[in-house]
Amino acid sequence: MDEIYMREALRIAAYASGRTTPNPLVGAVIVKDNRIVGQGWHRKAGTEHAEIHALHQAGELAKGADIYVTLEPCSHYGKTPPCCQAIIKAGIKRVIVAMTDPNPLVAGNGLKELKAAGIEVVEGVCRDEAEKLNEVFLKWIVHKMPFIVVKTAMTLDGKIATVSGDSKWITNEKSRKFVHQLRDLYDGILVGIGTVLADNPTLTTRLDHLGKNPVRIIVDSKARIPLDSIVITNKSAHTILAVTERASQEKIAALLQVGIEVIVTKEKADQVDLSDLLKILAEKNICSILVEGGSRINYSFFVEHLVDKVHCFIAPKIIGGTDAASPIGGKGTFYMKDAYQLNDITTERFDEDILITGYVR
Amino acid sequence: MDEIYMREALRIAAYASGRTTPNPLVGAVIVKDNRIVGQGWHRKAGTEHAEIHALHQAGELAKGADIYVTLEPCSHYGKTPPCCQAIIKAGIKRVIVAMTDPNPLVAGNGLKELKAAGIEVVEGVCRDEAEKLNEVFLKWIVHKMPFIVVKTAMTLDGKIATVSGDSKWITNEKSRKFVHQLRDLYDGILVGIGTVLADNPTLTTRLDHLGKNPVRIIVDSKARIPLDSIVITNKSAHTILAVTERASQEKIAALLQVGIEVIVTKEKADQVDLSDLLKILAEKNICSILVEGGSRINYSFFVEHLVDKVHCFIAPKIIGGTDAASPIGGKGTFYMKDAYQLNDITTERFDEDILITGYVR
Repeated sequence: MDEIYMREALRIAAYASGRTTPNPLVGAVIVKDNRIVGQGWHRKAGTEHAEIHALHQAGELAKGADIYVTLEPCSHYGKTPPCCQAIIKAGIKRVIVAMTDPNPLVAGNGLKELKAAGIEVVEGVCRDEAEKLNEVFLKWIVHKMPFIVVKTAMTLDGKIATVSGDSKWITNEKSRKFVHQLRDLYDGILVGIGTVLADNPTLTTRLDHLGKNPVRIIVDSKARIPLDSIVITNKSAHTILAVTERASQEKIAALLQVGIEVIVTKEKADQVDLSDLLKILAEKNICSILVEGGSRINYSFFVEHLVDKVHCFIAPKIIGGTDAASPIGGKGTFYMKDAYQLNDITTERFDEDILITGYVR
Repeated sequence: MDEIYMREALRIAAYASGRTTPNPLVGAVIVKDNRIVGQGWHRKAGTEHAEIHALHQAGELAKGADIYVTLEPCSHYGKTPPCCQAIIKAGIKRVIVAMTDPNPLVAGNGLKELKAAGIEVVEGVCRDEAEKLNEVFLKWIVHKMPFIVVKTAMTLDGKIATVSGDSKWITNEKSRKFVHQLRDLYDGILVGIGTVLADNPTLTTRLDHLGKNPVRIIVDSKARIPLDSIVITNKSAHTILAVTERASQEKIAALLQVGIEVIVTKEKADQVDLSDLLKILAEKNICSILVEGGSRINYSFFVEHLVDKVHCFIAPKIIGGTDAASPIGGKGTFYMKDAYQLNDITTERFDEDILITGYVR
C-alpha cells in the first residue's frame, strides 16, 4: 500500500514541474484508515511546503494519521518554518518518505527530528521515481551546477537541415509543441551566437496556456550579437549574454543599456568557458538549462562533460545530402570507443515522429 | 473465431520466411468442431503447398471441416497440382482466406472454382496482416520488381562513422545479429563498389544455425572491383556484378572466369541504371534485396523511388564531428517539402539500440 500513496504524492508533486526553482518538487499525502484525508504539493519557492498544505487540508484528522512525502521534510528555518515541527505538532503517527533531502541543511536531520519525537519513519519508498522527479534539483543542490538538457531534432538520415539550409520543418507539429513544453519546464534556454545570426529566434515558450519563458542565454564570446536581434528587442523574457574579455566594452555598454544582462566568463580556447558560465548561472538560481544548439556548441557541451540528459527527435523523413548538417558537430571523437554513451534510453511517439531520451552518466 | 485460426495460419506461414522465393508465404489450418485437425505451411518453391500439407495431416477428418488459408488457393497447374481440386476432393465445407492471390494466374479464379463446387467461401479475414506477411511477394508479382529494403545504422547524432572513418561498432551485438537475420530473409544483398573498396566485406549471413546467404549484388559501373575482393574469392554465396558498357571487356572476362555473374545494365548519368538492374534481377527471381549502402547509392535508391522499406538502427551514442558521414548522402533534396516521407513507423529495441522501421509509399 505504501507505494500506492507515495505514487499519488509523486503525481501531485509533478503538478508544479518547472515552477519551484530553486526548490525541489514535493508532494505529500495524509492517509488515515486507508483514506486520503489531505494532500498538497509545493508550488513555488517561498510559499508553503507540500506537508503544510496537506496538514491544513487534513485538519484534526491528521492526528494519528500517516503522511507520505516525496522528500524528507525540512528541519530548518528557510523562507518558511520547518515542516518537521508542524508534522510533530499535528500528531502524525508515521512518516513515509521516498528519499532523504540531499540539501546539506537537511540531509537526514529531518528524519532524526521526527524519530526523536517518537514518530515511526519509513525511508526509500519509490526512491527511483522520486530521484527522477527531482533530477534537476539533485544536480543543482549537490554539484552547484545547472542540469543540462540537450535537445536536437533530425531526419531519419541524421540531418538537421537540407543542403540548402532549409529546416522548416524537420519535425511535426506535435513534436514542436512538446519542445515548447520543455522550454516551459526549464529555467534557461541556451544557444550559440551562430543560431541567433542564422535564425534570429525568439526562444520563448509558446503554449496555449500558462507558458513560462525560460531565461534566454546566448553564448557570444565576442558580443557579436546585433542589437536588433529578437532576443534583445523582445522583452517577454530576460536575456543573458555570455561573453569573454574579448568583447568590446562599448558593445557591452550598449547591451546593458537595453536591459540585457552580460556575464563575462573565463576563456577556454578563445571562447566562453562553458563550465565557468554554468557555475555562474547556478549561483543565480538557474538550476536547469535547455540547450538548443547549434551543432558546434552542442558538441562543446559533450566534450566538457556538462550534459545530463538528451532529447533527440527523429522525423521519419529522408533528405540525403553529403553536405547537409547533422545535430552535433565540432571536431568529433576520433574513435568509436570514445563515443559519449547515453543510458536509460526511452522512446516516445509524437504521431510518426520519435523522441529518444537518454542520460549521460 | 475466424481471426484466431487465421492468425495461427499466418503464424505458421512465417516459419518459411525467406525460403519460398519466388513463391508467397502461405499457411493453412483445418478446423473441425473447434479443434485444429491439420495444419501446414509452404516451405519452398516447387514443393507442396500449405493446403496439401494440412489436408494430409487431417486425412479423413477434413470431410466437412473448415480450412483457413492465408492466401487464396491456387487453381492452376504450376510445379504442383492445383490446391482447389484437392480441397474440393477432401470434402472441405468452408474455406476462409485472408486475401486473394494477386498472381494473375489465380486472381480470384481459385475462389470461383471453390464456390462453383458448393463450398462456402469467406474472404478478407486478417487481410492487413496477410498483406504485410507477403509484402515481398506482392511487390514482385504485381510490379515485376524486387522489394527493396534499405538498412542503415547511425549514432544518435546521425553519424555512420567517426571523422576518422572508424565505425566499429556503431550498433551493439544484438542489433548486428538482427542484421544477419535480415540477410537471411532476403534474396539479395546490394552494396556499391565504394563499400567493397573501403571495407572489403563478406556480405554473408552469419547466424548460429540455418543461415541462408543472399546473392551478393555489387553495383560497379566500371568494373573496378579487385579480383581478390572477398565477395569474389569467398564462394559461400553467389556474386553478381552490375556494370555498364564502360566496363572493360578484359575485366569482365576475368570476372566470368572466376565464377562471377556480370550484368550489363543501361546507363543513367554515367552509372548503372538501378531501375534497369532491378528489373533484370526480378526476372532472375530475386524478389527482395537488402541494400546496405554506402550513403551515395542509398540516396540513389530514394531519388529513383525504388525503396519500399527502411530499417534504421540508432545507437544512443554521440560522436560529434562536422565532417563525419551520415547514412544517406548524394546531392540531397533542396527543400524539406521534398523529403522522402516514411510511413507505418514502428520502433523496436535491441537493448539500448533502437530500430526504426518505415515504409515509403
